[in-house]
Amino acid sequence: MKQIFQYHQLQKEILTPADFEFYAQKNLDPALYAYLSGGGGQQQTLKHNRKRLDQLQLQPRVLRKLDHGHSRYTLLGHELSAPILLAPVAHQGLVDEQAELASAQAAEAIGQGLVLSTLSTKRLESVAEATSGFKSFQLYTQPDRSVTYDLIDRACGAGFASLMVTVDTPLQSSSLEARRLGFHLESRVEAANLAEYAHPSTIQVTEGESYIFQGLMAQAPSWEDIRDIIEYSPIPVWIKGVLSVDDALMLKSVGAQGLVVSNHGGRALDGVPSPLDVLPSMRRALGADFLLMADSGVRSGYDIFKFLAAGADAVLIGRLQVYALATAGALGVAHLLKLLSEELQLCMALTGCAELDEIERHCLYESK
Amino acid sequence: MKQIFQYHQLQKEILTPADFEFYAQKNLDPALYAYLSGGGGQQQTLKHNRKRLDQLQLQPRVLRKLDHGHSRYTLLGHELSAPILLAPVAHQGLVDEQAELASAQAAEAIGQGLVLSTLSTKRLESVAEATSGFKSFQLYTQPDRSVTYDLIDRACGAGFASLMVTVDTPLQSSSLEARRLGFHLESRVEAANLAEYAHPSTIQVTEGESYIFQGLMAQAPSWEDIRDIIEYSPIPVWIKGVLSVDDALMLKSVGAQGLVVSNHGGRALDGVPSPLDVLPSMRRALGADFLLMADSGVRSGYDIFKFLAAGADAVLIGRLQVYALATAGALGVAHLLKLLSEELQLCMALTGCAELDEIERHCLYESK
Amino acid sequence: MKQIFQYHQLQKEILTPADFEFYAQKNLDPALYAYLSGGGGQQQTLKHNRKRLDQLQLQPRVLRKLDHGHSRYTLLGHELSAPILLAPVAHQGLVDEQAELASAQAAEAIGQGLVLSTLSTKRLESVAEATSGFKSFQLYTQPDRSVTYDLIDRACGAGFASLMVTVDTPLQSSSLEARRLGFHLESRVEAANLAEYAHPSTIQVTEGESYIFQGLMAQAPSWEDIRDIIEYSPIPVWIKGVLSVDDALMLKSVGAQGLVVSNHGGRALDGVPSPLDVLPSMRRALGADFLLMADSGVRSGYDIFKFLAAGADAVLIGRLQVYALATAGALGVAHLLKLLSEELQLCMALTGCAELDEIERHCLYESK
Amino acid sequence: MKQIFQYHQLQKEILTPADFEFYAQKNLDPALYAYLSGGGGQQQTLKHNRKRLDQLQLQPRVLRKLDHGHSRYTLLGHELSAPILLAPVAHQGLVDEQAELASAQAAEAIGQGLVLSTLSTKRLESVAEATSGFKSFQLYTQPDRSVTYDLIDRACGAGFASLMVTVDTPLQSSSLEARRLGFHLESRVEAANLAEYAHPSTIQVTEGESYIFQGLMAQAPSWEDIRDIIEYSPIPVWIKGVLSVDDALMLKSVGAQGLVVSNHGGRALDGVPSPLDVLPSMRRALGADFLLMADSGVRSGYDIFKFLAAGADAVLIGRLQVYALATAGALGVAHLLKLLSEELQLCMALTGCAELDEIERHCLYESK
Repeated sequence: MKQIFQYHQLQKEILTPADFEFYAQKNLDPALYAYLSGGGGQQQTLKHNRKRLDQLQLQPRVLRKLDHGHSRYTLLGHELSAPILLAPVAHQGLVDEQAELASAQAAEAIGQGLVLSTLSTKRLESVAEATSGFKSFQLYTQPDRSVTYDLIDRACGAGFASLMVTVDTPLQSSSLEARRLGFHLESRVEAANLAEYAHPSTIQVTEGESYIFQGLMAQAPSWEDIRDIIEYSPIPVWIKGVLSVDDALMLKSVGAQGLVVSNHGGRALDGVPSPLDVLPSMRRALGADFLLMADSGVRSGYDIFKFLAAGADAVLIGRLQVYALATAGALGVAHLLKLLSEELQLCMALTGCAELDEIERHCLYESK
Repeated sequence: MKQIFQYHQLQKEILTPADFEFYAQKNLDPALYAYLSGGGGQQQTLKHNRKRLDQLQLQPRVLRKLDHGHSRYTLLGHELSAPILLAPVAHQGLVDEQAELASAQAAEAIGQGLVLSTLSTKRLESVAEATSGFKSFQLYTQPDRSVTYDLIDRACGAGFASLMVTVDTPLQSSSLEARRLGFHLESRVEAANLAEYAHPSTIQVTEGESYIFQGLMAQAPSWEDIRDIIEYSPIPVWIKGVLSVDDALMLKSVGAQGLVVSNHGGRALDGVPSPLDVLPSMRRALGADFLLMADSGVRSGYDIFKFLAAGADAVLIGRLQVYALATAGALGVAHLLKLLSEELQLCMALTGCAELDEIERHCLYESK
Repeated sequence: MKQIFQYHQLQKEILTPADFEFYAQKNLDPALYAYLSGGGGQQQTLKHNRKRLDQLQLQPRVLRKLDHGHSRYTLLGHELSAPILLAPVAHQGLVDEQAELASAQAAEAIGQGLVLSTLSTKRLESVAEATSGFKSFQLYTQPDRSVTYDLIDRACGAGFASLMVTVDTPLQSSSLEARRLGFHLESRVEAANLAEYAHPSTIQVTEGESYIFQGLMAQAPSWEDIRDIIEYSPIPVWIKGVLSVDDALMLKSVGAQGLVVSNHGGRALDGVPSPLDVLPSMRRALGADFLLMADSGVRSGYDIFKFLAAGADAVLIGRLQVYALATAGALGVAHLLKLLSEELQLCMALTGCAELDEIERHCLYESK
Repeated sequence: MKQIFQYHQLQKEILTPADFEFYAQKNLDPALYAYLSGGGGQQQTLKHNRKRLDQLQLQPRVLRKLDHGHSRYTLLGHELSAPILLAPVAHQGLVDEQAELASAQAAEAIGQGLVLSTLSTKRLESVAEATSGFKSFQLYTQPDRSVTYDLIDRACGAGFASLMVTVDTPLQSSSLEARRLGFHLESRVEAANLAEYAHPSTIQVTEGESYIFQGLMAQAPSWEDIRDIIEYSPIPVWIKGVLSVDDALMLKSVGAQGLVVSNHGGRALDGVPSPLDVLPSMRRALGADFLLMADSGVRSGYDIFKFLAAGADAVLIGRLQVYALATAGALGVAHLLKLLSEELQLCMALTGCAELDEIERHCLYESK
C-alpha cells in the first residue's frame, strides 16, 4: 500500500476525478479492487447509475454576470466550500494506513464535509480529534440495542453534528468477481468502533426457517427502531438508502431531518432505479426545504450538478474517495475534492447559476 | 457425462444460478450444448427474453418488519417451499444417467415441484415411484388419439397431480448452430414413455400440398382436442405455451385450470414477445384467482421475482435445470433450487414483501 | 464464377436464406461483393432496414385448425405458390453465366414470379422464351423517349404481364467500399436490352450549372413521363420506389395499378425510413384493394411475413436472389424460394393464419 | 506539415467529406490531432452530436421536375453557391502554412463564405486582401475593452461583412486526450491579430475566491458587453454559441441580427443538446425571417440538409475544414466544399426540393 503520487505529480497526472479509478486499479490487489469497484448481483444497478447520469443533458445559458458566483453551502450551521460530503465508506484502512484520518484532513483542508462509517478503521474519537471540519456519524444499528445507543452517545460526545442511519443493506455481499477472486473482508479488517463490544453471535436458523427472513431480516432495523433512535438522539438523524417516495414521506413524518437518496452505489439490491430517477418526485413530495442528499454513480462534478438539478441539496462521494485515498492518501482526496468543486462550478457558470439555489430542473435540458 | 462437482465444491464454485451455464458448457459436447442452449431462427426471442428481464427494475422498500417472512406456495394442496417448478425438459438422459430421477429427487429435497416431460428418458411410472414431492405430467398430444389417452391414464394412475398440455410447438427444430454442428436428436435419445406404442408413421404430403400446413399442422392439437382432453382427464389440465390474451380467455372458458405463459424459452417461433410483455394484461383479463405460471429466460431468483410481480403465480425452470443436472446431477439441481429460492427471498425482503401475495406490480419501478 | 453446391449439398448446407450471403461472399471477388451488398452513403438506411425488421414482433396464436392452410397468391390472374417475386436486380451475369435465365427458371419451378430488369444481362425476349411463369418487366426510362417506348413495346410483345417503372434512383452510385476496392460497373457489364439503341450522350453541364439538378435530374422521369407511360402501356403499370404517402396517392390517381414501397435496399438516398415504417399509413391511405408490394432488407420468410402484416400484398427479393444465384445458380435460387416460402408458412401457422388475407396488423405484437 | 494529395489524386481518394478525417489523422502528429478532434470532458456532447444527426431520417419524394433546381443562398447581399460557411477555426497555421489564406481562397473559388477567427494565424487584413468572397469576422471579446473595439474597427476597415461574437466558451480547455499527449496550444501558436496589443495579465484570484467565478467568468462577455458592441458596430452583429431559446429571444431583442446555434462542436460544456434538438423550437420562437445558422457535428452534406430542414438558414463547417486543410491545403478545402454542396443538392433532389426555401420540417421523416 504505497501511494503513487506526490502532490506536484498529482496535478499533472490526474486531470479528472475519474482518473483516480485508473490509478487505484493499478495500485490495489485485484481482489480488493474487485471488492471496492464491484456491485451486487449482475451489476445492473451499477451500470444503470452511469447510464442515467450520462443520458441527462444540461441546458447552457450565456452572458450572465457571474463574477459574484460561488458554490458555498451551509449544513447544520457549517459553511462548506461546496455541497459535497465524503461518504461513509467502511474500512478505509484497506487502502491507506492513515485511513479515515486522511480523508478527514482532506475534507477539512478543502472545506467540505465528512461522514464517518460505523465500520471505520480508525476510532470515531480519533477521527473527531483530527479534524475541526464538518462531520456526521454513519450508524449501522447493532444486534445488541445497547451497543447502538452507546455508539450514538460516543458520536455525540465526540462532536459529530448528525447521525446518518443506513437502512438499505440488511442483506449485502461482496461482488461476484471479488468472491471469485477469493476476497474475504472479514480476514482483512477490524471495526475499531466495535472493538470494545462483545462480538454478536453468528446467525442461526432452525430447519424450515429462512436464513434471509428469520436470520438476516430479524436483525435488520425496523420503523420502530428508527423512531426510537430519533427520539433518543440529541443530534439530527438522517436516513441513508431511500428510493421510495412513500418511505421518504414516512421517514419525514417520524422525525428524520434528512435523507440520502441512494442505491448504495449499486452494492445493495441489484436492478433498482438510480437516485436520478426518483429525486424529482422525492423533492416534490417532501417540499423545497427538506434536506435531501444523494449518492450512487458519481464520477465527476458534472454528475454532482445533475444530482443537484434533479433535486438534491448535497452529494456524497463514495468510491472516488477510496480511489483517491488509494492513489495518494490525504493529498489524493483533497485533490479529488478540488477537482469535483471546480467541475461543479464550471457547470454552474455555463448554465448561468451564480449560487447553488439557482440550480434547478430547468438547468437540465428536457427534450421536447 | 461425468459430474464435475461434489457438493462441498458446489457451494464454493457456484455462486449464482447462472454459473451452472458456464460449467455445463465446459462439461457437454459442443453440439449437445448448442442444442440445449440455442433458440429458434435468428434467436431474436432468446435475446429479447433476457433484455426485457434485465430492463425491468425493482422498487426497494425499507424498515418493514419481515422476520415472519417466507416464500411458501400451495399448489393443488401441496405446500412448496417456493413457487418454483422444474420445467418439463425432454430427454434429460442426454446430460445425466439418472436423468429425471435426479431432478425429481432434487425438487423433493428442496420442497419444490416437478413437471415431467412426455419425452422423458425415464418412464413416468419410475419417476413417480422415486418421489413423493409435487409432480405434474406434461403431455404432447400424439398422432394416435388412443395413445394420448393412454398416457393420461398412466399419469393419473401413477399419481401425477395435473396434466400440462404443450400447445406452442407443432413446428420446432433444433437451433441453427446445433444443426451446423451435426446434432441429431433422434440418434441420441429414446422416449421411454412412448416405447410401448407403435411408432407414428412419417409425415407424407402429396404434390402441391404444404409440408407445414397439410403435414405438421394436420397433426397439431386443436381446440377440439383440448376440449376433449379436459373432459376426459380426472386431474386438472393446464396449458403451456400461451402468449395471446384471447387464446388465454378461450382456454379458461373451455375449462383449463392453469396456463403457462411462455415462448418456450425462445425455442419455438422466433421474434415473439417475452412473457413479461404479456403477463400484466393476461392477469387483468383472467382475474386474480386464475393459475398463471410462466417461464422463458429465467436465470436467477431476481427474474422469478420479476415474473411474479408482473402477474405470475409460479415459475418454471428449464435450461438452468439441465445445466445444473449436467454439472452435478441431483445435487446440482438441488443447489440450483436453493440459490433461486434465496435470491427470490432476497428480492422479497428488500422490496418489503413478507409473503408471495404481497409481490405486486408496485414492487416494480415504473419510470415516470 | 463456379457454383459451389450441387443440390443435394445445398439442402444440407443452406439452412436459412441468410446462409446464401455467407457463401456468396466466399465465392465472389471482394469488389463485386462490396458492390452487391453495399448501400448508399454511410449505409444508415441499410442498417435501419434490418433494425426495424428485427424489432417487429409476431403475436403467436395456438390451437387453430390449419390443415387446409396455404400461401397461394393470385397476381394479374396468375396463381403463385407464395406472394414472392424475384426483384429486378440488374446485371445478373456478374454472378452467373445463365444470369436471368437461371432466375426465371427457378421462379417458374417453385411457382413464384419474376421481375426482369431493363439492365438484364440476357435479352428480355430470351428470358420470356425461357419461362412460362409469371413475369413483369422493370423499366428505367431512357433519355431518348422513343427508346423507352420501344422497350415497352418489346416487353408487351414478349408476354410480360406488367411494367414496373423505377422512380427512386435518378441519382445512385456504388457503395463507398466498392468504389474504394476499385469496382467499375461499366467495365464489367453490358445491358443486352439496350444494345440495339444508340448510346445516350454523356451528361454535360455548363459553368454555373449543377451536375445534379441540370445534369442528372434533367434526365429523371417526371410526373408527366409517368402519366404518358400509363396512357401508352397496354399492360398494367406499377411504380417502384415510393416511400411517401402523398406520392402514393398521386400515383394511384394518375392510374398506377400497383406500387412497390421500397428504399431500393438502402442503395438510393441514405438515411430514409424502412418500408415497414410507412406501409401501415400507405395501406390506410390507398385502401385495402390497391396492390402494394414491398422490398428492402428482407433476409427471411419471417421478414416477408412482417411486410405482409404491415400492409404489403407481395414482397420482392433482391440481394438474396443474387447471393443464391452466385452460390448455386438456378438450383440456388429455387432452394432460396422454397426456404422463404416455408418460413412464411411457418409464421402463418404459428400466428394462426390459414391464408394470406388473414395476415393482418394484429398478427404483429404491439407492446402496450 | 506536407500536403498529401495533389488535386487529381484528391478526386480519386476522397469520396466523401468524412474521408478527410482519415487522412488528417494520418498526416498530423497525434497530440495535435487529439486537440483538433477531441471534445470537452467525457465527450458526451461530441458523441451526442453524431447520434442525433444519424437518427434523423429524410422523407424521399419522387418525380418532381427539378431541372431548374439550385442551392444558391444570399447572405447580406452576397450570393453564395450554397448556404455553407467555413467556421472560424482558430490557429489554422497548426496544420497548413498558408493557413486562413488557403481557406479563404478555397471558399471564394467555390463561391461559399468564410468566417475568420480572432485567433487566426494570419492577420485579418492579409486574409481580407487575399479574397473577394464573402467574409465575416469572429470576435472574442478581450479583457481590455479598447482592444475589442480596435478589432471591430480593423474588421470593418478591412471589409468584413459582419461580426460573429462567440459567447459559449468563457471556460474551455483542450480535450483530455490532447492534454495526456502533452499538447500545449500556447507553445505552438501566435494570434497574429492580437500581436500588436499588450498581453493580457494572467488571471489571479485571492484566497477564498473561485478561479472559475472570480477568475474566468469575471472576464467573460456579459449582456451589457453585447449591447455595447451592437451599438458600436457599423456592421451586423451575429452571436455564436446559443442553445437556449430564452437567450436567443433576448439576443434578438437587443439587436443581434443572426445567431449560430452551436455547442462548439462538443468542445465547450460537456453533456449538452445538439443544435438539432433545439433548432425547431428556436425557429418557432424567432420567426421565419431571423437569420439562424448552426454547426456542431456536421460530417456530410446530408447533415447540412438535416440542419436546414430542422430550421437553420446556413451551416458552418469546423473540423472538416481543418481536416481538409491538413490533407491538401486550399485544394483540399475547395474539394471539401464541392463534395458538401453536391451531397446537399443530392438530398434536395431526392426529397423533391428545387430551392433552399423548400427544405422544411416535412422533408424529415417523423415516425408516427
